[in-house]
Amino acid sequence: MKALEEKILKEGTVLPGNILKVGSFLNQQIDAAFLMEMGKEIARLYENDGITKVLTIEASGIAIALAAAAQMNVPMLFAKKTQSLNQSGEIYTAKVKSYTHGKVYDIVVPKEYLLPGDRILIVDDFLAVGNALRGLIKICEDAGATFVGCVAAIEKGFQHGGDKLREEGYRVDALALVDEMTDDTVTFRH
Amino acid sequence: MKALEEKILKEGTVLPGNILKVGSFLNQQIDAAFLMEMGKEIARLYENDGITKVLTIEASGIAIALAAAAQMNVPMLFAKKTQSLNQSGEIYTAKVKSYTHGKVYDIVVPKEYLLPGDRILIVDDFLAVGNALRGLIKICEDAGATFVGCVAAIEKGFQHGGDKLREEGYRVDALALVDEMTDDTVTFRH
Repeated sequence: MKALEEKILKEGTVLPGNILKVGSFLNQQIDAAFLMEMGKEIARLYENDGITKVLTIEASGIAIALAAAAQMNVPMLFAKKTQSLNQSGEIYTAKVKSYTHGKVYDIVVPKEYLLPGDRILIVDDFLAVGNALRGLIKICEDAGATFVGCVAAIEKGFQHGGDKLREEGYRVDALALVDEMTDDTVTFRH
Repeated sequence: MKALEEKILKEGTVLPGNILKVGSFLNQQIDAAFLMEMGKEIARLYENDGITKVLTIEASGIAIALAAAAQMNVPMLFAKKTQSLNQSGEIYTAKVKSYTHGKVYDIVVPKEYLLPGDRILIVDDFLAVGNALRGLIKICEDAGATFVGCVAAIEKGFQHGGDKLREEGYRVDALALVDEMTDDTVTFRH
């Protein structure tokens, strides 16, 4: 998505530790009108795939997932992160290792909201090593729902999570795919 | 907002501890189309107030705040919850006591996103005792920004946080104001 690449070049900052800071428009300040445009592009990519629900993970995935769901006219569902499983009712859960902090946490979705007939599009702000995405895919599989594909607003191609999933046969899309970052430059893959 | 009251009566469940569960459409499954309608109503309430930014708090406020910001065509900004202040850069912060868990946590907004000229509308999913809202108002005041008002999707009137703020002269609106809840009934104030 050309407009997103331009916005990353204009407003993004590369920080130590392979961090691409886009806090001025994607997280934690959010350019609401632009996010709705990103949602429109996601809806276009999956317009023929019979998606019934958009799934994401709190907190930074919620905004982009809502934008996509609103444009696709389907519900959005987010997994909660927790270090203690004490939710009432029946849940699907997966363990996710945080690349940034090294910690393992549980992600949780109530069974009542994820149904065997659902065709799921996972939407998130970033895709790097793909640990969170794999946790969400496992939850879809446990629910007997169909994981149709995933869209990341920004994929960090140099961390290879997306490519590994593609090699395994999963559909993974990115609105902007960063192949290389230095202090001064961001290079996109097309 | 009549449609919201009807949805609460149809899909909401009252749980022990004064909890109104609306997980099927407001949190954590989100009816995206309906949320955009709620955003439209919020935009209508504040259409003449020169709002420059919508402020909320992660995670459950993000969706409704984005819906409002998209309809108002202004950016959305969310405060992060943290128990350890280790963010880089300059921040505004406030302490918030969780009514549910009793814990005190810090909420954090980077200074670069909240400016003295900003006219802020705070949007959140629930308003009960109002602790989170008071923390957000303090952050606005620390920034020299103007706190114009607050909209809660659902206000629990029987916990009096909204009424206390109104008595202090703040503008507080709710899309649905619950005056009483029992196991079987939810009564609204109009």
